[in-house]
This record gives sequence, C-alpha cells and structure tokens, in this order.
Amino acid sequence: MLLKEIEHFLEEDCGHEDYELIVPITTVCNAEITVKEDGLLAGLEEVLQIFDYAGLKYSTEFTDADALRAEDVVVRLHGSAAKILKVERLVLNILGRMSGIATLVHEYVEEAQSGNYHVTVAGTRKTTPGFRKYEKRAIMIGGGDPHRFGLADAVIIKDNHLALMGLEQAIKKAKSAISFTRKLEIEVETIEDALQAASLGVDIIMLDNMTPTKVKECLQLLNTSGLRDRLLIEASGGITKENVREYAATGVDIVSIGRLTYAARSLGFSLHVRT
Amino acid sequence: MLLKEIEHFLEEDCGHEDYELIVPITTVCNAEITVKEDGLLAGLEEVLQIFDYAGLKYSTEFTDADALRAEDVVVRLHGSAAKILKVERLVLNILGRMSGIATLVHEYVEEAQSGNYHVTVAGTRKTTPGFRKYEKRAIMIGGGDPHRFGLADAVIIKDNHLALMGLEQAIKKAKSAISFTRKLEIEVETIEDALQAASLGVDIIMLDNMTPTKVKECLQLLNTSGLRDRLLIEASGGITKENVREYAATGVDIVSIGRLTYAARSLGFSLHVRT
Amino acid sequence: MLLKEIEHFLEEDCGHEDYELIVPITTVCNAEITVKEDGLLAGLEEVLQIFDYAGLKYSTEFTDADALRAEDVVVRLHGSAAKILKVERLVLNILGRMSGIATLVHEYVEEAQSGNYHVTVAGTRKTTPGFRKYEKRAIMIGGGDPHRFGLADAVIIKDNHLALMGLEQAIKKAKSAISFTRKLEIEVETIEDALQAASLGVDIIMLDNMTPTKVKECLQLLNTSGLRDRLLIEASGGITKENVREYAATGVDIVSIGRLTYAARSLGFSLHVRT
Amino acid sequence: MLLKEIEHFLEEDCGHEDYELIVPITTVCNAEITVKEDGLLAGLEEVLQIFDYAGLKYSTEFTDADALRAEDVVVRLHGSAAKILKVERLVLNILGRMSGIATLVHEYVEEAQSGNYHVTVAGTRKTTPGFRKYEKRAIMIGGGDPHRFGLADAVIIKDNHLALMGLEQAIKKAKSAISFTRKLEIEVETIEDALQAASLGVDIIMLDNMTPTKVKECLQLLNTSGLRDRLLIEASGGITKENVREYAATGVDIVSIGRLTYAARSLGFSLHVRT
Amino acid sequence: MLLKEIEHFLEEDCGHEDYELIVPITTVCNAEITVKEDGLLAGLEEVLQIFDYAGLKYSTEFTDADALRAEDVVVRLHGSAAKILKVERLVLNILGRMSGIATLVHEYVEEAQSGNYHVTVAGTRKTTPGFRKYEKRAIMIGGGDPHRFGLADAVIIKDNHLALMGLEQAIKKAKSAISFTRKLEIEVETIEDALQAASLGVDIIMLDNMTPTKVKECLQLLNTSGLRDRLLIEASGGITKENVREYAATGVDIVSIGRLTYAARSLGFSLHVRT
Amino acid sequence: MLLKEIEHFLEEDCGHEDYELIVPITTVCNAEITVKEDGLLAGLEEVLQIFDYAGLKYSTEFTDADALRAEDVVVRLHGSAAKILKVERLVLNILGRMSGIATLVHEYVEEAQSGNYHVTVAGTRKTTPGFRKYEKRAIMIGGGDPHRFGLADAVIIKDNHLALMGLEQAIKKAKSAISFTRKLEIEVETIEDALQAASLGVDIIMLDNMTPTKVKECLQLLNTSGLRDRLLIEASGGITKENVREYAATGVDIVSIGRLTYAARSLGFSLHVRT
Repeated sequence: MLLKEIEHFLEEDCGHEDYELIVPITTVCNAEITVKEDGLLAGLEEVLQIFDYAGLKYSTEFTDADALRAEDVVVRLHGSAAKILKVERLVLNILGRMSGIATLVHEYVEEAQSGNYHVTVAGTRKTTPGFRKYEKRAIMIGGGDPHRFGLADAVIIKDNHLALMGLEQAIKKAKSAISFTRKLEIEVETIEDALQAASLGVDIIMLDNMTPTKVKECLQLLNTSGLRDRLLIEASGGITKENVREYAATGVDIVSIGRLTYAARSLGFSLHVRT
Repeated sequence: MLLKEIEHFLEEDCGHEDYELIVPITTVCNAEITVKEDGLLAGLEEVLQIFDYAGLKYSTEFTDADALRAEDVVVRLHGSAAKILKVERLVLNILGRMSGIATLVHEYVEEAQSGNYHVTVAGTRKTTPGFRKYEKRAIMIGGGDPHRFGLADAVIIKDNHLALMGLEQAIKKAKSAISFTRKLEIEVETIEDALQAASLGVDIIMLDNMTPTKVKECLQLLNTSGLRDRLLIEASGGITKENVREYAATGVDIVSIGRLTYAARSLGFSLHVRT
Repeated sequence: MLLKEIEHFLEEDCGHEDYELIVPITTVCNAEITVKEDGLLAGLEEVLQIFDYAGLKYSTEFTDADALRAEDVVVRLHGSAAKILKVERLVLNILGRMSGIATLVHEYVEEAQSGNYHVTVAGTRKTTPGFRKYEKRAIMIGGGDPHRFGLADAVIIKDNHLALMGLEQAIKKAKSAISFTRKLEIEVETIEDALQAASLGVDIIMLDNMTPTKVKECLQLLNTSGLRDRLLIEASGGITKENVREYAATGVDIVSIGRLTYAARSLGFSLHVRT
Repeated sequence: MLLKEIEHFLEEDCGHEDYELIVPITTVCNAEITVKEDGLLAGLEEVLQIFDYAGLKYSTEFTDADALRAEDVVVRLHGSAAKILKVERLVLNILGRMSGIATLVHEYVEEAQSGNYHVTVAGTRKTTPGFRKYEKRAIMIGGGDPHRFGLADAVIIKDNHLALMGLEQAIKKAKSAISFTRKLEIEVETIEDALQAASLGVDIIMLDNMTPTKVKECLQLLNTSGLRDRLLIEASGGITKENVREYAATGVDIVSIGRLTYAARSLGFSLHVRT
Repeated sequence: MLLKEIEHFLEEDCGHEDYELIVPITTVCNAEITVKEDGLLAGLEEVLQIFDYAGLKYSTEFTDADALRAEDVVVRLHGSAAKILKVERLVLNILGRMSGIATLVHEYVEEAQSGNYHVTVAGTRKTTPGFRKYEKRAIMIGGGDPHRFGLADAVIIKDNHLALMGLEQAIKKAKSAISFTRKLEIEVETIEDALQAASLGVDIIMLDNMTPTKVKECLQLLNTSGLRDRLLIEASGGITKENVREYAATGVDIVSIGRLTYAARSLGFSLHVRT
Repeated sequence: MLLKEIEHFLEEDCGHEDYELIVPITTVCNAEITVKEDGLLAGLEEVLQIFDYAGLKYSTEFTDADALRAEDVVVRLHGSAAKILKVERLVLNILGRMSGIATLVHEYVEEAQSGNYHVTVAGTRKTTPGFRKYEKRAIMIGGGDPHRFGLADAVIIKDNHLALMGLEQAIKKAKSAISFTRKLEIEVETIEDALQAASLGVDIIMLDNMTPTKVKECLQLLNTSGLRDRLLIEASGGITKENVREYAATGVDIVSIGRLTYAARSLGFSLHVRT
C-alpha cells in the first residue's frame, strides 16, 4: 500500500481525531487478532504495512492464502495501546473483506475445477468503488484470476459497443486502435457472433448469458471451424456456486463471476487486548 | 459528492485511459439504466452528480428510497456515447452496492419493527474501506440509523478499553475528556457492567453478545433501579434476520447489525444503449 | 498529524525549494526553541512529529498544557542545519498559534470558573480555514471544550433553520433524520423558544445573544417547568473576558465564545541555532 | 481559488456530511451577508468563487478593499437553502479572517504613512499554516506588501544563517547559489553588520530589533558611505501601532510587522436567510 | 484530463499567485496560438479542456494528428486576458512537448514503413515522470503504438528477471501468476533464448540489442521451427532514424524506440494577444 | 522530494500493481546503476531518496554535478529484488532526464563563458508539465541559472502585456502591484523599448529575438545614457550552441535558452542485477 492509501483509509475512520481520548498515550499492551470462523486468509500483507506505519511490532505464523480455522490467532501485536485502537477497525475491515472474498473465490474454484481441472475462475469489475485494488488481490489470493483491472488494460467490446457500431466495425476499430501489448476481448450473446468474432480475430470471446448447453455447442462449432485453438473462451452471466461446475465442464477456459466480489460477505475477525 | 471523490473513483476504473478507443467521440446516444430485481433504490443522488460531472443529460422518475420492481427504468440518459461508457461501470457499482445495502436494511427494519415498532435498526463501522460514506448513507436510505461515522463523533468505550482500564476509570476518563456535544456510549457484556455504567452516567449502553432473554433481564433491572429512563439501550452481536424480531421485542431502543454492510450483496443494475 | 498534513504545510512554506541554498547540507548543529512570553504550551506534540518527519533529534522537559515562563527552552534540537531551517517557520507558527489560543482559553476558563466552578468554556467553528483541527485541539489543551468539530458531529438548529422552517418543524425533522449517536442542539434568541424547544426534546439549548439577566430568567423558567434537568444550557454571543464571569454565574452549563479562536493572537516563540 | 482548495476547506467543515439533514433539498431562499462592524473588505473574490462552485446566484455592490460600515449588506444570495447552509461557515470564516487582517493592515498603513508617506508596510511568514495564501492576499488588499511568500521566492539570510556561517560567507554563498531573478535580503542586528552587508552587495537589509534611533543612525551611516542608494532598508521586530509612525519617520523603506497576521482578529460577518 | 490534473499542472506554474497582477481583471481580448515550424499536432484535446476549465471561448480548424505548417493559427481564443495569461505557458508546454513527440514518431513511422509497410513503431516507458499519460498519447497521435503504459498492463520478463531466475523459471512463474487478460512478453539477447521462450509459450518476444542481421536470422529460425506464427516479434535497443528502416525490413512486427520520448524536442508554439 | 511526489511518480509507473508478480518477494540481491555515455550527473539526490522510501541500501562515490564517464557505476544497491524492480524505471527516468539536461546546460555554459566569462546561462519555463522542479534543479546542477520558477516569483512583463497595456502603463502597474521582495523584468523587442524601460526603472531587461549586433548596440546606448549600471540585461530568443558564444560576447549579463529543457535528450543509464 502507498502511504497515501493508508492515510486515506485511516482518515475515513478517524477523521480529525488524531489522539485517543480515553487510553493514556503512554500505555503499552499486547493484542491478538483472531479469526472467528474458518476461511482463507487475505489482507495480511496490507495490515502488516499498516502496523509498520503505526510503529507497532507484530508476529504471525501465517501468510496470505493460508487456510484459517476458527479461533486461530492470526497476528500478535505489541505497542502503544492508543495506536492499536486507532488502526483496529481499519485492519479488521481489510482482513474481513479481503478474506471474505478469498474464501468465496476458493469455494468457487474448488467447485469449478471439480468439473474441469483447467478452468480459470475470474472476477469482474463489479467491485466496491475505492477498494478494487484489494478486492482484485483477494481474488488472486483465493486462487482466482482478477480479470482486467479497469478500462486501461485489456480491451473488451461489450454489448453497448455492439449496439453502437455493430460487431465487425467494433472489432476493426479496436484492432486498429489498441496497442499490440493489450488483448482484445469481445462479449457476445449469440453463437453467430462468437463465430464471426473468432474469424475476425480476437484474443478472448466472452459468451454472455448462455446456458451450459449453448456454451458447449458454441465450443464445438468453433472447434469444427478450426478457430478454437487460438482463442480463450470465457463464460459469464448468471454463474453461481450451483452451476459453476456445469459451466466449467463445458470446456470453457474461463468462468467469470461478478458475485465473487459483489455478493461476498466479510470473514469475521476480532482484535483483543491482552494485558 | 466532491469532485475529487468522483475523480478518485473514476480514475480507479479508467486509469490513464481518458479517451474511449472504440466508439467515435462524436457519437451521441440514449441509454437506460434498468434494475434487474426488486429492491430499494439508493445511490441515485450520487450517480446524477456523476452524470453532471460528465456533461450527460438525464431524467428519472425515482428518488432514493423508492421501491424498485425488476425491469424498472431508473434513469434515462442522453449524451456522448464515449462518456456514457466511461462512467457506466462506476455508476452501476455505486447503485448496486448502495441499493443492495438499502434493500437489506429495509428487510431488517420491517422484520425488527414487527417485533417492536419503535426500535431503531443501526449499522456499524464494519464497512468497506474507502466507501463508508456511501454505505452509511445507504443505511439511512434503507430506513436504518448509520450509527457513529467514525472515531470522531460519538465516543464508545469498548471491550479493549475495559481490558486496559476497567469500566469505572474508562467512564471517568471519557467523561472528562470528551466534548459536551458528543454522546458517550459503552459496550458491556454483563448485566453487572450495564448497571454500573448506568449508574456512572453514560448516554447509551450497548449490550454485546447477550441473548434476547439476557437483554430483557437487563432492561428490567435497569427499570427497577430507575436508570432505564435516561438511557438508550442498544443490542448488538450475532443479530440476524432470524432473530432480529426477538431482539427488538425485548424493548431495546436500538439493534445494531454489522451484516447490514459486511454481508450485503449488490442489487443488479444494467445500462443499455438505445440507438 | 498525518504525513500528508505535514507535507501540505511544509509545501506551503517551502514551495519547490527542497534544498537549502545557503547552508551546506552536511552542516550539523544544535538549536533551541524558546518562548518569548508567559503562556500555556500547545502544539508540542505536533512539532515533535514534524521533527520525526525531518529526521531531527530532540528533547524536551514539557508537555502540552504546561505553563511556560518567558525564556523557557521548550525544545532542544540536534541534526542537519538545513533541515532545521526548513521546518523552522512552520514549527514556530504551529506553536505560536496553538499556544496563543490555549493561553487565551485558559484565561477565559479561570475567569469563568471564578463565577461558576462547573461551567464549561467552549469554542465555536469560527476558526481559520485549513487549521481547525489544531485550533480545536488548542482549545482542549487550554482547558476548554472544542464544541462540535463541524457539520458532521452534533446537529445544531440555527437561526437560519428557524427562519426557513419554524422551530417545531425543524426539531421534528432533525429528530427523525439524525442518528441516535448524535446530540441535537438548538440555538434560540427568546425565552419562549427555549421553553418550547425544551418541551419538544433536544439535548442542548444555546441561548444566543441574551444578557446574563435574561439567561438567568430562562434558567429559572426551565427549572420551574421541570425541563432544566435533562438539558445542557449554553450561553453564546457577545461573551468577553469582561462579562464571562457574570454569564458563568447564571448557572449555565456552557459558555461558548468565538473569540477564543477568531481573536486569539499567537504566543511568541523563536528558534536559535547554538553552535 | 483552485477547486481542490475549495473542497479541502469545505470538507474540513462538512466532513462526510454531504447532505443537509434538516432543510428539504428543494427549498430555495434568499440570503444576505452583512458585516457587523466597520472595516475593510477582503475575501470577497474568494467567497464568490465558492458560491459559483455551489451553484448559488449572487450580487454585490462591493469589491475587495472597499471600506465597510457596520450593517452593510455585502452580498445578496439566491439559491438552494441546503447549499447556502453548507457553505455559510466557510464563507464567513474567510471573510472574517481576511477582512480582519486587511482592516488591521490598513490601520498600520495609515499610521505609518503619517510618519513617512513613502514607507511600505509589509507582512511576514508568521501566518496560520494552511491559509497563508489568503492571509498574504489580505495584506495586499489592506494596502500592505505581502513580503516574500515562502522560502522559494526572495532569499533572506537570517540570524541562524549568520550563527552558522558568518555574514561574509553567507552572503558569498547566497550570491553564488541564487538565481539572478531573486532578491537577496539579509537580517542584521548591528549597524556594523548592516554596513558590511551593504558593501558586500545585497538588495535589502532588514534591521532587526533596533530602536528607531538606531535605525536612523544606521541609515545615516549608509548614506554617508554612499551605500544607501541601491538598497532597500527594512525595519522589523517589535513594531506596534504605537511606534510604527516613529519607525516610518526614520526614513526606512519598509516596516515589516508580524502582528499584521499573528495578532489580527477576524471582522464580524453574518449570513441571514431572508424568506 | 481530470480537473485535478489540470490544477496540478497549473499550480506548478502559478504557485500561490491566483490573480494576475498587471492586467486588469476586467480586460477581455482575443488571442491566437500559432505554430512556428512544420510538424504534427498533438495535445489539442488537452488544451481545449484547459480552456474550458478557465472559462475561455475558442475555435479551431484542426484536430490532433493534423499536419501543421509553420505560421498556422492552431486555436483562436476569446476571453479574460488575465486568464489567458495564466494558462498560456502550460498550454504551450503541453502542445510543444506532445506535438514534438508526435512529429518525431511520425518521421520514424514513415521511415520504418518504407522498409516494411506492416511494421509497428512503438514507444517505451522512458518518459518524463509525471507526464507519461500525455507522452504515450502523443505517440499514438503520431501513428505509433504506446507499448505498455506501466507495470500493470502487459508483463515483460526483462534482463534482470532472467539474471535472478533464469528464463524457464521466469516464464513458468509469470504464466502461473498473471491474468489471462494480460499478454506476456520476454526480452532476450540471444537467439537461443528467443527460441526457448517461443517454445515455452509467450505472446511477444523482444529481441534486445541485436543487429538487423541477427534479428533476421532469429526470425528465420523461428519460422523454421514453426514457432513464428503465434508470436509477435519486437526489435529494440539502439534503433535510430538511420537504421529503423533496416530493422523494419527484417520482418519484425514491432520496433520499439526509447528516443521517441527521451530524445524528442518540443515543437515551437506561441500565443499572441490580438487587440 | 516529498513522500507524496515519490508516490505520485511511482504510481504512474506501477498503477495498482503493488506486488511484483514474477520474482519471489523474499529474493534479495545486489544491483548497479551504470551510465552508458559521458555526461554530468544530476538526479542522484532524488533517487537516493527513492531508495530510502523503498527501504533499499545503497552506496555511491558520486554527487550531483560530478562528471561521469561511460560505464561508471553510479550507485550500488542492495535489498529486495522486487523493490529494486519496482523503482527501477522511475529511477532511471529521473537520472536520465535530469542528467541529460545538466549535461546540455554544461555544454552551453562552457561555450558561452568562452565568449564572456561572467555571463550567466539561464533556463526558461519551457519545461515538461509535472516535472519542472527537477528540470530547474538539473539546470542549476549543470551550472546554469534556473530563471524564475513560475508566475509567483519574479514578475516579467511580456509581449502580451505590452500588446494589452503599452509599456509605460504596464511598468507602472507592475511597480505598484508587486512586492518589494520581487524583481521586475521586462521583455522588449526594440532598442527604444529597452531604453524607455530602463528609464522607467526595472531590474532586468530581456532583449528578445535581437541579433548579437542589435544586442551590442542596445548595451552601448544604455551605457551612454548611464542606465546600464543598475540593470541586468538578458538576451533571449533563438540562442543555440552555435551562436551562444557570440551572444555572450556582447557583454549581456544573461543568456536564457528554452532548449536547455525543451530540446534536451536523456542521458543513458541502466540498472543491472548482480547475483
């Protein structure tokens, strides 16, 4: 984290209150962060940086992506009680949200790979404004693929581009406009569009809102026409923990799932002073 | 929203990519934002400000806190297609996250008030770093109470303060240190502590992790000792949609519930260009 | 102080001039900060943080809120002469402005409490834009109450609200809109309004621009009507060092005084290199 | 003002509270800013920019540097009541602080120029951290000279430089290090140093903490030695409204006075809604 | 440009000087921006946004990427003279630097494509800190490819990665760590490494510091081994206007050239008030 | 450098990518920065500050303004490989751009001073937006004068001021408006204007776009009229390495040259990991 990110988040929680009012500033104590439920740890690297910023000492037996069991002591802290209380909520919120996402991603990955060992489970841009960087990292820690970070890495031609320009023109324009360092993806809703996009040359085709059967059919047609080979195929839209295995089993390369971030709930952590 | 907040969130999504690469910058179009499922609208005021920032024209028949039915057209847009595509994801993420929280809060409020018409359903500081302001506002739109924003409004003596200083000293110190403009709340886990805190004089007592039965008992003892009257009593810890009614029925003034924010999922919205 | 606050203030004074032009960057020296006149020390904690930022070593026998006598050596410094010269003016300005306010507050507190030992002397929002956090802290160090920091903590219904909505509607709207964690205060100019506000239920009533006699009368009527008990009463408007004792003696809980910040003058400090 | 400055100051006062809670957002009203006492107007240009930012309409018959009489209506406003209430305190604080300084400066200028019509009354860097730009501008509006803004415009060799390097070396080093576009000033405490500095070639000599008699003597010696001509001579240290005329009458070019900013008190303004 | 970028650049040039001191703020005038030499226009879109920010009216017959002839009037301006003078230097610096780069890129593209019509001329990350976004855009306007913006889009395994990990391990690690949405490029200095990288599967191979002959040989070996087909081959290192045609003629897909940015000189523009 | 400047530049290059993906975060290594060509070192102080920020250890035998020979090892580094790779490009870009400018300035200074030992070679405001501070410092390191930093130090009356107000009025207005701490310069294109400006009293006259002969003639006329003495005379416009000596030899005090920054190319540096 940049120092300015740490201060931006701390300021959100502390406002103008730089000085703990209740606990004497000379009080020193130990504290422990424990997890309340099983899950996958994410956000540890971030919170350790926050402890460094606050001048707190710490030790831990874990690293991000480790499995946690309820009651595990994730970090042991030592230092100014006032400073521990000042960073407490931010640190718990980061651990909670990131581990919550990582845990959910991990469940999806397990389920999806039971249907297709090589499938990639990917996130989307459906993240909380102001916290995407950490939600994307949590996806990676959970074993998923963050997908593009924002508009400035891979280029995706989406439904609205197609509505505005038509598929052929959109692909042509994109290919002439984007850097050779960036991949070109297109989101299509019909098999016809998928085949046309493949023949016009893109790197990735996202099959949006198709049933697993439709996805399978599309993959076969791409195979038949010899276009499958150089393409990554991504299924997206309406994929849940219930059907992700079926989607994976179609042979797609990637399943991308908005709810990895927009429907994740935080994992419970708490911080207790030990005197 | 401040201009700097809008630009901070936009920059997160767009990076250095100021210029839509695919759609000609002269293209003008209409677009509609529709909701995919029933829920309570929140975030509209924010996204209209973003449209103003982007120079887009809009109309809407809704205001925040309105009930939405799946397929409702929430906003109609007109303007530069490139600019619509640039703000699309941010706008949908704001509407989705805020409406998701508002919808969940509304459900809790309905359920809780079926047990006690006067109960207040409140949030906590368990929010996503960088987006608290909007999550708190979503709670209010949903009919809940945002609770304190951060460390700088009401003062809460929490478990860690008690561990460090003991209840009596913590209350004394807090009362001497905080402004008369701020309320003093204390979080207790036993009835004894609640009674002692009440007699030492605080504004709000949070009964943490007590069963509804325990809460009731505590309220009765406070009543008996004549201390109930000037106090707000808040129940917190482990309150879910299943038991919120029972907690409310104990007669507490407030139930505060972390999962209003940390376990909310986004409401689905989409934006479609209409040509 | 956040690092970004330190850099914001330093940049104001140093602009693009990162490098001391005259003194060789290898020169190391001692320096002392002395106070030129009697007063109350405030801002020490801030300037020590600035010395930490600049990598300077320091020692001091004082803490904030200590009484200073003219010529006292407040801080002894050791380190890079160039860095000492770079932070000199900022550090003196912070000490000067904060100690000036703290000293003035202390004088008001002494005077007021000679009339009523239990009275609270409070500041207002009449502060210098960009420096409120430190002016409010100086008030606290001087023994005063900072009053609400800004619009986002306690809610105050002021004359303009009354002009727009009337007293009854304003109170009703405020009570339905604000969090249970926040106090509700109302500013009134007549005894009638004070009584009505008290009966409608607010936490604090500010009697604005009333003479001490009027204030007394109002307190008696509130007493008589049994409404005094749960209320904090604040007198405000035109309170000076000359009449503050009289106001305090009326029995109000708080006297709030804009001139604690808007009419404070800095206390004199200087920094001298000792070679 | 830059938009980011406006938002920085507004955020200080409003925190996360973007939305007025009491007054309906649809309410539109008129309002007037009046001055409570005689003085010199400063800060008008800034507050009009804030009204533009807030989308408020305004009219005024004044411009900065105009004399104000108590009860003058300085600005008439029209627009959203919620927005008027949101900017009210910031706007009054800017007008108050800037006009307070301008008024004080004007008094010093009148007094000083009664002793020497050509004397310049200048400020110092003893300003409130975070608000210097506006305090310096207030000095100019009041008829004074802002003096250097910070370390990055004119170079001043001060007592601490002399302690570290001696006068001759400091001047030599400065002359070799600074741009030809910048003036070189030196602060001296003895006539000997003044003469030596003059002979070594500087642009401005500040006679620090000398009595008017001493200043006069120094000027005569400079005259005699033919060095006065190309120099600006500035008197500084302990100059008050009582003695400024005497200092001016010595024939110095400039009197610089820290208390123009560090001892100024705000001029009273108030904003009233007119319904 | 974001408003904050405009203000960041303006503040660099104007500092605390918000108000033009010489020209009356009521003066209105016309002005013209003319180009002093032939070249390719870039930066127009940016400067028009700055004029919008400053409230200036403008007209132009050009768009970015247009060829300019010495003395062409690029933009006609109308509005406040003070504001025109305030933005003048920033606007000229943006036009100058961006057009200078675009012009140079265009010359390289012409020369390179005379050797190989399909070759792409690309930039690098050797840009001026703080201005990359605009230098990259100038490359695009000049007909070049911006190459990756920074570390966060395409991943490039460079010489230092190879020194640390060896080629095979570096590719393996990268392939397992990066998102499917990102391309993987490797920089190699020998033909052996190029062949090995190709067989391990990367998207782009950069042949660093090879002679055109060596590049040709490498391409042939890749062809022979059937690996050329799915790869983009980029030549880099020591490519100048003199040899770019020869490099292009080897059949590489891309030539990337640091001096497009690090050795570009500004194109001359000037702004003249027309009264 | 301020921490916020370091983070602003780093963020430009690294975006959201806080974590090196390829090299294990535990890998520690040595590295060397070498220069590829002869030149003058500038930017070292800045890059050492960046290494401090990144927690890297370093040693160097050089300081800014030292002459470098191709292949010199400028800095030796030790620390986290991931962190070295993260700052590598920023550090090389700073060294390259600053040393490139310093080297070019040094060449101009040598050439100019061969014609007139006392001449000052100065830069202009024709710098890259966002990087002026460092380009100005590079000019100083190269032995040149940075000229005014921006609009807020010396005041220059330029052609556009003359077009708007005429010379006499512009000088009068400027003299009444600017602080005594600032120098007043005027840019003129005719000898008549130079003489008039001299007689009206300015500190510096810039002779713009005059031939050396014209400059000489102007200097003689100023001499004759006894006005030369108190003035600095600056020649500007069209000065190149070819004619700078001739301009210097006219006896002007300063030659100012935009191409010191706008036409400088970077000096080549590279960073190599040593395992």
